[in-house]
Amino acid sequence: MSHLLEETHFGQLTEALVAAFEALIGPEHVLTPGRLDDDEYARYGQDHTEDFVFRPDVVLRPANAEQISGIMRLCHEHRLPVTPRGAGTGLSGGALPIHHGVVLSTERLNKILQIDERNLQATVEPGVVNETFQNAVKEVGLFYPPDPASKGSCSLGGNLAHSSGGPKAVKYGTTKDYVLNLEVVLPNGDIIWTAANTLKNSTGYNLTQLMVGSEGTLGIITKVVFRLLPYPQQNILMLVPFRQEAQAAEAVAAVFRAGIIPSGMEFMEREAIAWSSDYLKIPLTLPEDIRAHLLIELDGNDLDQLYKEAEQVYAVLESYDVGEILLADNATQKDELWKIRRNIGNSVRYNSVYKEEDTVVPRAELPTLLKGVKEIGVRYGFKSVCYGHAGDGNLHVNIIRGELTDEQWNVGLRQPITEIFELCVKLGGTISGEHGIGLVQKGYIGIALKEANLNLMRGIKQVFDPHGILNPGKIF
Amino acid sequence: MSHLLEETHFGQLTEALVAAFEALIGPEHVLTPGRLDDDEYARYGQDHTEDFVFRPDVVLRPANAEQISGIMRLCHEHRLPVTPRGAGTGLSGGALPIHHGVVLSTERLNKILQIDERNLQATVEPGVVNETFQNAVKEVGLFYPPDPASKGSCSLGGNLAHSSGGPKAVKYGTTKDYVLNLEVVLPNGDIIWTAANTLKNSTGYNLTQLMVGSEGTLGIITKVVFRLLPYPQQNILMLVPFRQEAQAAEAVAAVFRAGIIPSGMEFMEREAIAWSSDYLKIPLTLPEDIRAHLLIELDGNDLDQLYKEAEQVYAVLESYDVGEILLADNATQKDELWKIRRNIGNSVRYNSVYKEEDTVVPRAELPTLLKGVKEIGVRYGFKSVCYGHAGDGNLHVNIIRGELTDEQWNVGLRQPITEIFELCVKLGGTISGEHGIGLVQKGYIGIALKEANLNLMRGIKQVFDPHGILNPGKIF
Repeated sequence: MSHLLEETHFGQLTEALVAAFEALIGPEHVLTPGRLDDDEYARYGQDHTEDFVFRPDVVLRPANAEQISGIMRLCHEHRLPVTPRGAGTGLSGGALPIHHGVVLSTERLNKILQIDERNLQATVEPGVVNETFQNAVKEVGLFYPPDPASKGSCSLGGNLAHSSGGPKAVKYGTTKDYVLNLEVVLPNGDIIWTAANTLKNSTGYNLTQLMVGSEGTLGIITKVVFRLLPYPQQNILMLVPFRQEAQAAEAVAAVFRAGIIPSGMEFMEREAIAWSSDYLKIPLTLPEDIRAHLLIELDGNDLDQLYKEAEQVYAVLESYDVGEILLADNATQKDELWKIRRNIGNSVRYNSVYKEEDTVVPRAELPTLLKGVKEIGVRYGFKSVCYGHAGDGNLHVNIIRGELTDEQWNVGLRQPITEIFELCVKLGGTISGEHGIGLVQKGYIGIALKEANLNLMRGIKQVFDPHGILNPGKIF
Repeated sequence: MSHLLEETHFGQLTEALVAAFEALIGPEHVLTPGRLDDDEYARYGQDHTEDFVFRPDVVLRPANAEQISGIMRLCHEHRLPVTPRGAGTGLSGGALPIHHGVVLSTERLNKILQIDERNLQATVEPGVVNETFQNAVKEVGLFYPPDPASKGSCSLGGNLAHSSGGPKAVKYGTTKDYVLNLEVVLPNGDIIWTAANTLKNSTGYNLTQLMVGSEGTLGIITKVVFRLLPYPQQNILMLVPFRQEAQAAEAVAAVFRAGIIPSGMEFMEREAIAWSSDYLKIPLTLPEDIRAHLLIELDGNDLDQLYKEAEQVYAVLESYDVGEILLADNATQKDELWKIRRNIGNSVRYNSVYKEEDTVVPRAELPTLLKGVKEIGVRYGFKSVCYGHAGDGNLHVNIIRGELTDEQWNVGLRQPITEIFELCVKLGGTISGEHGIGLVQKGYIGIALKEANLNLMRGIKQVFDPHGILNPGKIF
């Protein structure tokens, strides 16, 4: 893995530092290799990215911003690398402690501090699991839309680090669109709030949106104020089978052009849906000639209105070669269809090690991207399973390891992945829509961003983190 | 005005530099005092902020990014201050060339380059007037929501500089929520694109949102890619009179809590609506006991559905002491009501010099803010006219000069304005929601932001603009 690492001169963890950490947060929350079962310890060196493991020197589990501030002051002074960690479900290696040192886990910052029903806002800690938060606000009639496939296990802090999306992003936007204000511990230990608890803010530079998507390289988020929406009361879900992949991709832009904004517009090629329904043991009829599906959701408060919109969607789909459309007629069927969609990643992981490319292009360029990805696969001899948030032009390309050799897997794929990303950029897109750059896409960032852009980013990093201790070796 | 200026050491405009500018962009676009009518020239030293005038040494009117790049290279080398200027409708003094030097006007970058109907996107230059752009996309069934009161004259570049909002922000968000990608000329002359033309992007730091709201201090925006929505086909507009200001402010949060997201939710106290209808000579019956109005708009594609929502709004309003609700029954009446709302600022300006404070708090805190502003006014002996985007908690407080002396106006108001802003912050809000800090709020920024925040912002400014030549003396 040495090609992924940079030359850096970090300080070493000493017994004195371990003692100082223990004094700060309590010995039971300072985990060193001897103090934890070996497998459990190794888990702090992994996320959901391929099969990487980087063992940290110490795992710290602070409880609040003040403790994190104390930790960061020490690490800043002693030049100790710190890798922040949420739930470890990331797909770009952002939580991997590639320089070892400290893993700072936010698992104990797991409280929903306030749900402010008067202002449709909530204040939460970053370790709260996405779905836990969604459910808590739903109980009082409120809606937090961002819903990554891993919503049952991923943390809100991780969602913020990558500006995670999910199926509902097409209508409601990604994590970034719900963040009003962040409490952040800076690398030097200072604690700031980035903004105010307001829907609008034109008071200085937007530090909030600079933090969101910065992959834990600029500061450690310790509290979040989210805005919320009224919970939409009704929804309709349909599964539309297509006989040609390209037509499924083309239909996406046509639905929007007809004036409909679905609350979900997911693309799944045949194997994506087949692998996932097999994995979940949910029986699904897949006629031989069906090559892809769109899962389309409409939501709102009035069911009659939604049926009218569904008719408009049907009218659009008449121009395409579609099979029999399944309109989910109860909550269980809807849950099953979404479960299949959400478990594609897991089913692929169950079948094989894989690399997930998080390609994104303007929506109407999706057919061209899909065709290009498949052509590149044929040319270089790899298999891919493609699916994703078609309404956002965000296609997850899962490259299956299968029988590829180490050489083919580690080196041989670089050129075809480069070509896939170059195609994205040529189509007006970029190399990550919602997973981040982290470790595994770092080598490709020059395809998407010019040196002048990267220099600005490096300059910003230097302003926030002059010693480069926070999540070193990520993004650029 | 010297207390507003900093000690800085800028270079001087020389004849050689004027000649170099002429060679770059053509002599007819290099305006020096002798070359233009004096009043016309002075206009480049003003915006809509109070009665300030700062005359630039030269006004440059480049046509494209390449010319701006050439200008910036020269100014960077010769340390010449550059103040970018859109349409000059700003309310915080952002376009005022307080250090003289160059005014760089974007008036000739006024083309809509592409409306991409397939992707619901448009690429435009920053000098395009907001309403011109709105109308152009509406012609093909598309919708660009941000609509500041000055939409008929303000430029999109100015909107980006301040992340301008407008009435529709309450449902659709502000300018920042529609920007996908920006072409920017950096202070050293480098030209970059900040991102990609995609709805999602998790590829490095969010330079796009760092530019938006940076008030022309980090770079000069030369192209914008906006996302668009399908144009909503129907709307309903109602004017609701209240017998108590505080109740009008309270009703705002109640409507949202009932699950309704209006596309407009504007607050106008009695004098705001009275002054504007007088100014426009639009007759309006204002019963003696009415103290404030809410202007509520609902939009969507189905009129029946909107009437259902309107009934829900009526049900909420029944809990308050309201007068007879006016439901606009044709397009002309709607236009007139919006015209009254949009011209409050102009009518105030027509009556008196004024200072406009752009206060913003979480929506439900609006009654407390309004009450506090009025109490502070009584205590310090000034009159204010209040109105604004109540759905966003954004209250424009217009302090009327009236008979105040120079001393009272320039010095005496500092303490009460400080108290108004301290109240905003105490309520979870901040000192500008959509107008920016610019020149006139600069002295108050410490109320909203800690020194650690300001140091990060200064550090970022230094990364983008090491010589501090771009819009110097603004924000901080």
